[in-house]
Amino acid sequence: MTAAVRALFNPRSIALVGATDKSGWSSATFQNLRNNAFQGPVYLVNPRTEEVHGEHAYPSLSAIPERVDLAYVMVPTHALVPVLREGAELGIRGYVVLTAGFGETGAEGLRLEHEVAEFAREHQLTVLGPNGNGYINAAAGITPYGLPIPTPLLSGPIGVVLQSGALASAVLNFSQARNVGISLLTAMGNETVLSVTDVIDYLVDDPATKVIALFLEQIRRPDEFARVARRAARAGKPIVALKIGSSELASHTAQAHTGALVGDDAVVDAAFRQLGVIRVRSLEDLIITAGMLASVGRLPGRRIGVVTPSGGASEIIADRAAEEGLELPGFAPETVARLKEIVPEFATVQNPLDVTGYVLIDRTLLGRALEVVADDPGIDAVLLLADLPRVAPPNPELSIQAFQANARRIRNAPRPVAVVGNVCADVSEFGRMIQQKSDFPYVAGGIEHGMSALGAAARWSESFLSDVDIPDPEPLDVRGSGIWAEHRAAALLAEHGIPVVPAELAVDADAAVAAAERFGYPVVLKAVADGLGHKSDIGGVRLGLSGPEDVRRAHDEVCATLRERAASGISTLVQPQRSGGVELLVGVVRDPVWGLTMAIGLGGVWVEVLRDSALRLLPVDRHQVRQALGELRGAPLLRGARGAKPADLDAVADVVVRIGQLAAGIGERLESLEVNPLLVDGNRVEALDALITWH
Amino acid sequence: MTAAVRALFNPRSIALVGATDKSGWSSATFQNLRNNAFQGPVYLVNPRTEEVHGEHAYPSLSAIPERVDLAYVMVPTHALVPVLREGAELGIRGYVVLTAGFGETGAEGLRLEHEVAEFAREHQLTVLGPNGNGYINAAAGITPYGLPIPTPLLSGPIGVVLQSGALASAVLNFSQARNVGISLLTAMGNETVLSVTDVIDYLVDDPATKVIALFLEQIRRPDEFARVARRAARAGKPIVALKIGSSELASHTAQAHTGALVGDDAVVDAAFRQLGVIRVRSLEDLIITAGMLASVGRLPGRRIGVVTPSGGASEIIADRAAEEGLELPGFAPETVARLKEIVPEFATVQNPLDVTGYVLIDRTLLGRALEVVADDPGIDAVLLLADLPRVAPPNPELSIQAFQANARRIRNAPRPVAVVGNVCADVSEFGRMIQQKSDFPYVAGGIEHGMSALGAAARWSESFLSDVDIPDPEPLDVRGSGIWAEHRAAALLAEHGIPVVPAELAVDADAAVAAAERFGYPVVLKAVADGLGHKSDIGGVRLGLSGPEDVRRAHDEVCATLRERAASGISTLVQPQRSGGVELLVGVVRDPVWGLTMAIGLGGVWVEVLRDSALRLLPVDRHQVRQALGELRGAPLLRGARGAKPADLDAVADVVVRIGQLAAGIGERLESLEVNPLLVDGNRVEALDALITWH
Repeated sequence: MTAAVRALFNPRSIALVGATDKSGWSSATFQNLRNNAFQGPVYLVNPRTEEVHGEHAYPSLSAIPERVDLAYVMVPTHALVPVLREGAELGIRGYVVLTAGFGETGAEGLRLEHEVAEFAREHQLTVLGPNGNGYINAAAGITPYGLPIPTPLLSGPIGVVLQSGALASAVLNFSQARNVGISLLTAMGNETVLSVTDVIDYLVDDPATKVIALFLEQIRRPDEFARVARRAARAGKPIVALKIGSSELASHTAQAHTGALVGDDAVVDAAFRQLGVIRVRSLEDLIITAGMLASVGRLPGRRIGVVTPSGGASEIIADRAAEEGLELPGFAPETVARLKEIVPEFATVQNPLDVTGYVLIDRTLLGRALEVVADDPGIDAVLLLADLPRVAPPNPELSIQAFQANARRIRNAPRPVAVVGNVCADVSEFGRMIQQKSDFPYVAGGIEHGMSALGAAARWSESFLSDVDIPDPEPLDVRGSGIWAEHRAAALLAEHGIPVVPAELAVDADAAVAAAERFGYPVVLKAVADGLGHKSDIGGVRLGLSGPEDVRRAHDEVCATLRERAASGISTLVQPQRSGGVELLVGVVRDPVWGLTMAIGLGGVWVEVLRDSALRLLPVDRHQVRQALGELRGAPLLRGARGAKPADLDAVADVVVRIGQLAAGIGERLESLEVNPLLVDGNRVEALDALITWH
Repeated sequence: MTAAVRALFNPRSIALVGATDKSGWSSATFQNLRNNAFQGPVYLVNPRTEEVHGEHAYPSLSAIPERVDLAYVMVPTHALVPVLREGAELGIRGYVVLTAGFGETGAEGLRLEHEVAEFAREHQLTVLGPNGNGYINAAAGITPYGLPIPTPLLSGPIGVVLQSGALASAVLNFSQARNVGISLLTAMGNETVLSVTDVIDYLVDDPATKVIALFLEQIRRPDEFARVARRAARAGKPIVALKIGSSELASHTAQAHTGALVGDDAVVDAAFRQLGVIRVRSLEDLIITAGMLASVGRLPGRRIGVVTPSGGASEIIADRAAEEGLELPGFAPETVARLKEIVPEFATVQNPLDVTGYVLIDRTLLGRALEVVADDPGIDAVLLLADLPRVAPPNPELSIQAFQANARRIRNAPRPVAVVGNVCADVSEFGRMIQQKSDFPYVAGGIEHGMSALGAAARWSESFLSDVDIPDPEPLDVRGSGIWAEHRAAALLAEHGIPVVPAELAVDADAAVAAAERFGYPVVLKAVADGLGHKSDIGGVRLGLSGPEDVRRAHDEVCATLRERAASGISTLVQPQRSGGVELLVGVVRDPVWGLTMAIGLGGVWVEVLRDSALRLLPVDRHQVRQALGELRGAPLLRGARGAKPADLDAVADVVVRIGQLAAGIGERLESLEVNPLLVDGNRVEALDALITWH
């Protein structure tokens, strides 16, 4: 639908259907189009009056003598479909629907919304909304948007897509405060026809957009979202997203608010990471991070040289850099030598650099230091702490010249230079003037958010396409139902190349003892019965059996217990008992939004008490599994902490990838697959137990 | 020194010593005093010219015909002591010293600084600095301060103390952006005479100050800091502090910058928590949190009712509330019923409440909803999401009236109402006018920082004085040296009421076996020799000995190992082997800044891999120990996770408090005391091993 979406956002004529002096939305939309200098004609449609907003009103779309590219519809709920019908007959393809009263209100509204969707599909209409305020195409000055737009509207590199109309004003105000412009802003409404992913698709192709900023309440189409996120990554356009729902309460709020399903938040984190989407947690970080990425682009690495006129600020930056995983390496000897010739004698030359308050006396001090630091071979990018001035100094011309000189230095620097201000205060009128006249780059709003943005930029720059381009595994012809107990699950694992501890089924105590003798003591004995979930909870597992009498007694007791529970097809499984090593849990579950998702964790207290696990959407490759293992708080145990044998992480990753391939290959038919524990002892990796639940 | 400090900050006449047209600092100070309307005379002192800044200059302090209360000194480094001498003879007690070149530059500077300190002490002079920009007494309009002060200077409830002069401008700019005033701001400089704690002491008594905001590079006098923090807590004045040094790099930066010792950051966290000091991590949070606390004061609890005009914002608030540990309980039935009569039909009545975009049509909607929510008996405070307008609407008078009405509702509400804006954008010129004309309360700058501030306010409100008023334990007459091995350390513990596992010293294998027989098997055998640290690292511990032969062999092997290491006075210790329960580590170490500090953690992987421990300065009481135990990530194990017996936390706290009393009683002579493990099994608490290192 890309051409149709392009047409929707770039109409040459607009009709406001349902325009009326009585509605603030109607007035705002009309004023917005006038104020922001929409070049084409704006037609007002109202069957009950001849004049609206001081201009001629047409009784219907059909009455308009010229071609209409876009209808902005504000009619009552039940009048929407008739308007669409009339428009479709006239060949109008693009619609923005402000009208509310659809799926968000209940069953009847939902029925109407389905009708709208159906009609739009049949007649190939592109509809933004309903229940949305419209869009602001700042790049082209086209603003069919139902709330007052703060002026001046700054046009710039950030494309904004919002699943909350009310936040648009906050985003516009804050962008203006930061003196950073937007290309297109859309308030999505109910996404009945046009979805967030359609708009992202458009923004990936839009030359005015360098960075895409999202406010998301829910991901309605995860597969589509993944597709457009990969497209954006390939196009080198970062996506920054504020996705709510990290608290359970927010999920409830969003459900009440939009009727949408909000998935588990940790899975969202994992999905975003895999897709190279930068997740932020505040509106400030959304805009400041987007602005930073639009300004500095891809960073070559995370080693930052810091140039400031303040010791206190240097220290805050050092603290925040550590939190963001940014490195502030010591300067090279030649850098130190050159800096010593520049800074006052009492200054300490180090990274972060404080050139001292002498900047007040020597206006070139900060810029000359920046030039030297930018040359340092050991850094990847420079952070310059500098604010645009708030008020005009006695001689503004000097100020402009100083900023011009530094703007030149930043442009000519051999490495990206990120400019960060001290605090998140607005760029003032005078500051805007200076920034414009000197062509000074974007200034991130304050150390706190600026460092978050720089950290995000570094992480995004490191994410590479192999992460998001793992081919889907071959579908497997495996079928089952209910719960597969250990012996059947283990057999399937073994068939697909996953090492499994040896085991023998025993129908009676003699067989169990015979098996134990073949393996050698100690052995483990487990209950086996299909439909049996967690065996250990019901006393179905006996460990450390060290002789035939132990085995015989364990067999009889386990069977007796199971018979009490009326399980059918009872037998036991005998395995050699393993000792030593580290136990992992590798589980695949079906997330209601994102589908098959793998959780990797250390067993025992690590998952049960600490919930220490790393999630990945399937499919995964070895690189991702290695990365996931590294994220675990218990990772030191795998690396050999506390005298343990270091695990062969490549061997572990190999097995985990195979488990993922098996699960993804089963696909739709799988509800969950759990290997717990997966014992890792040096380079020996072995599934000791497994459970499969079929969908 | 309180009266002297009060005099320093409230002079009736000021002399600028070393004033010159050539110095920007001199011009700025002079202009600041003029602009901010200092009422008393300002004398300029310069021996080389008769006119400075267009006014008459005196050749020396002595030449001034009237009484001088405060000398602001900008002379060369070596001229400072002569100026002080002349001033002291004239009876001038107060000095602000901008002059640099002292301890921050090296040994010679440090010698000079000591001379200044000594002279000031002898002559009872109050000196702020040297190497500091001075202070801004905004409440009284007295501004002997060496950098340009942004105008207008807002006077208000926040007292600011900064260990970095360069950050003062950022703090002043940001306070202005947030439309919140300061009472006093001081840039401390080298703290040669007047220290941060002296200024805090003054602010605790200052009626213009409601909240104290600090930027700290290091705590130079922790005992003094603790004293003034307790005073502030008793006076109900919150202290908010941005303390740098959370990264190792920042510590180095601060050392280079000020020559001060920066203590371990986790200890700072613990100390602040115990002293009721709110720690923030950004300049934005410093000012926004201080403003919030000055506005809402002590909150009765952490149950918040949220009123907003935006679903998206509600969701962000819900996420942030969860992070801050704030509760958003469901509304009471009568609240729901009353709200349903107010909000549009399609709105969902819940907490957080979104009254919807109809606020654009009905200006009273938000205020009426606020009134209802503030009545809800199940909440402790209300969060109202509202921004001051950025630009004047067509009819500003209506806007003023609406804000007046809501300001009244907030004043009359039966519970504190915190107002939070959407984003951290400046309060505009028009917004300031509205706020002033309507007497509308403080608006926290954005959801992100506003929620941090509300969370901090709730936590501060819960901290109570018993936390900061634990009496010092009795000094104990216990002496020792070097390292005390287990049997001596354990004896000392037992003497002071700490339960210790029974043990017998054995000089030979027969004695060891005899002891084991008395205890019953299995037993533990350990090497004993003074000066021996961690026994298990050198094979000096044998566990699970189940018969006399085991004991005999273990005794001989352990002794042989020790003899190889040439340890003297070798014997072994036999103890019954305990099983089950949870192992704690309770250690007391001497922090270089804060003194004796207790670390409590779970043993094994919990401390070794996860570094899961909670710190407290000594002395501690049971409440604090309970709190510390609750902070551990492994706390669920103590509460009975994974089928363990729940620990008797009061019994644990009792023993831990006694360990703390013993350590604090030893005091200066103690280097460290470690009980590891302290076995907890239900209500049985028993030290299984201990080590004492003497100072």
